[in-house]
Amino acid sequence: MDSFVSADPVQRRLRRLGRGERREEAVAFLRQFARETGMAPETLAAREAEVRAALRRHGHYAHSIDELAFGARVAWRNHARCIGRLRWKSLAVRDCRDVTEPAAIAERMFAHVAEAAGRSGAAISIFAAAAGGVPATIENAQMFQYAGWIGEDGAVLGDRRNVELARIAIALGWRPPARRTAFDLLPLIVRDSRGHRHLFPLPPGLAKEVPIRHPTLAGLEALGLRWYSVPCVTNMVLTIGGIDYPCAPFNGYYMATEIASRNLADQRRFDLLPQVADALGMDRGDQLWRDMALTELNRAVLWSFGEAGAAIVDHHVASAEYMEFARLEQRAGRVPSGDWTWIVPPQASAACPVFHLPMTDMHAVPNFYVSRQLDGGALRLDRSLERQGRWLRRFRRWQARWRDWRRRRDAIWHRS
Amino acid sequence: MDSFVSADPVQRRLRRLGRGERREEAVAFLRQFARETGMAPETLAAREAEVRAALRRHGHYAHSIDELAFGARVAWRNHARCIGRLRWKSLAVRDCRDVTEPAAIAERMFAHVAEAAGRSGAAISIFAAAAGGVPATIENAQMFQYAGWIGEDGAVLGDRRNVELARIAIALGWRPPARRTAFDLLPLIVRDSRGHRHLFPLPPGLAKEVPIRHPTLAGLEALGLRWYSVPCVTNMVLTIGGIDYPCAPFNGYYMATEIASRNLADQRRFDLLPQVADALGMDRGDQLWRDMALTELNRAVLWSFGEAGAAIVDHHVASAEYMEFARLEQRAGRVPSGDWTWIVPPQASAACPVFHLPMTDMHAVPNFYVSRQLDGGALRLDRSLERQGRWLRRFRRWQARWRDWRRRRDAIWHRS
Repeated sequence: MDSFVSADPVQRRLRRLGRGERREEAVAFLRQFARETGMAPETLAAREAEVRAALRRHGHYAHSIDELAFGARVAWRNHARCIGRLRWKSLAVRDCRDVTEPAAIAERMFAHVAEAAGRSGAAISIFAAAAGGVPATIENAQMFQYAGWIGEDGAVLGDRRNVELARIAIALGWRPPARRTAFDLLPLIVRDSRGHRHLFPLPPGLAKEVPIRHPTLAGLEALGLRWYSVPCVTNMVLTIGGIDYPCAPFNGYYMATEIASRNLADQRRFDLLPQVADALGMDRGDQLWRDMALTELNRAVLWSFGEAGAAIVDHHVASAEYMEFARLEQRAGRVPSGDWTWIVPPQASAACPVFHLPMTDMHAVPNFYVSRQLDGGALRLDRSLERQGRWLRRFRRWQARWRDWRRRRDAIWHRS
Repeated sequence: MDSFVSADPVQRRLRRLGRGERREEAVAFLRQFARETGMAPETLAAREAEVRAALRRHGHYAHSIDELAFGARVAWRNHARCIGRLRWKSLAVRDCRDVTEPAAIAERMFAHVAEAAGRSGAAISIFAAAAGGVPATIENAQMFQYAGWIGEDGAVLGDRRNVELARIAIALGWRPPARRTAFDLLPLIVRDSRGHRHLFPLPPGLAKEVPIRHPTLAGLEALGLRWYSVPCVTNMVLTIGGIDYPCAPFNGYYMATEIASRNLADQRRFDLLPQVADALGMDRGDQLWRDMALTELNRAVLWSFGEAGAAIVDHHVASAEYMEFARLEQRAGRVPSGDWTWIVPPQASAACPVFHLPMTDMHAVPNFYVSRQLDGGALRLDRSLERQGRWLRRFRRWQARWRDWRRRRDAIWHRS
């Protein structure tokens, strides 16, 4: 636990909303919730009045459990960078808003990823909202991350992205393995509401790591590659109806290119493509050795995860599912929000249908974001939905009048 | 030759500039030309006055041959979608502004592509500017394009993108080959200044087509794939200093993915990936058969072009060259304009350094565009250059004053 805290880095990441803006987002969210769940107008009116009063009095309000679940699912549906949103309705939501102590948060997250390894669906644990102060948050970007070690010769062992995080963990008292490897899992670091950081080493075996082997080319196994089976993002802020949840870790499952074409291959990550090509017996004088090595590494990851019984999807299936998601969104009268540079897989890109799909990032709330500076600042209300709401309301008012008139007409006919 | 013309489709594609906007772009271009070529201030001032007078009197002005060459090269340098801009300075510029008759244009273009097949560099032929009316233009998108034929069963033979153009060519009197194939080259269609279209069949052998074979897998040859060696774009408008050249065809050379990962593979183009996989003896039950087929088709295209002595580059080399281009642009104090979705190759994307390069499309003039509606409407002056110009001018004024002061100081010293 460190005790030197100058300015709160979590507070700096959160969106800054004025009172009017927060009220506007809250009301728009409640109306969207009412619209999509078929809530009665009177119930909505009562809830809206309640939330307006709470915002006036305290500057914040508490979501009901149904609002929270709906908000988290719509935040996923709105998140333009995710290719796997077809099953947004099935997101399992765990209400952990009363879990505030670092040790309890760590315990809850260990249970979250242990459950996730057994099932292939997406789940989210939502801890306390930022209401006034900043609650406890998780410092790591993901539950599982491999350390990066700079050797004496300047070469890096492990994940280049986590060299700094490994240093921080050690400064906080972490004891790394005596023999450092490329796949040393970092401990969980939880920052409490006063800004103090607490270290929680992962229970052994929690990560359910998959050793990467190739189905036919034996050479790869000697490299000792491995990857954890559950991607669980822990540093994104969930924003629903003007309320920010800075600790709302969620897990999904991997698309193989994330591991094979990016994490293990990127020069700023593991940078292992040359070693993989050599291990697979490829000639690196060949013009297209990278293309071949990437395909075979993808095959190895897909096969190894399959053998280990861990959920995984290839980029062709993921693309087809995204096309279906976009189709369903359009049928529901919504613009599917998509960021082309993130959705299109980095492998056989033009052979994936998403490559040819025009996309727009609507930056709509509810959503997930990393920081105000990076992506949170662009988030806004989706006015197109409001408009749809207004027309729907007008249509319903007209419908109600028409039913009234017909009832009265029928009454007259029956009378005569 | 057809004679039914309603509204001019070329005029509809051109940018609409007000008198003030055209003058602004003209003056900014002249200053950029002066700045980058080190022109004397007096020469610039005289030329600027000349152009302002011409614009006042006629609404347009004529570029000098040097301005034209510089403008075309900077238009290429500014074009955000092209990965091959490292050699922008070497663009060969042919001034064909006095060639206005359709037959003469066709003849000139036949000569252009014949020359291009012998050398690997980029070249542009610039025909008359749109000054008042619309000059003759080329209807085809490229000099070489394969026809698309819809069979009686609804299946398409050839390039799906050119089904309509093949119909138009036949309506204008083209006699397609008796036995239609997937690789029937379409004739050149030139639209004269009155909007009438003239047909010019390509001289046999002009296209220097390369039969696509694989260096080691013999099965591919049986598919009879081929592609023309010189990409020559004929439907883009070149805009320089407020003057539009709607007929300014240019050629470069191919990056293999354009042919192998897009033209032959895209479902809306030749859609041949399944046939290629079968011909190469691949199992299409394999999860990654598309990835493998794409790599081998790229290899086949690279090898076949190499064997035929036709210029071609792979996506790894092209990416490295683009990185060098971006570095040089930044060193010259300019923001390299890039459209990430076009620059990043559709093959081994993240293994190409351009994937990790942040890019901005500056939409700067001079530039090339297809139509006002699509991309021309976003073009604008690059104010950052002007600012640089202003500061440079201030710095030079300050420098001049400093030299003056030193000269006078030295004179005093020498006197005492």
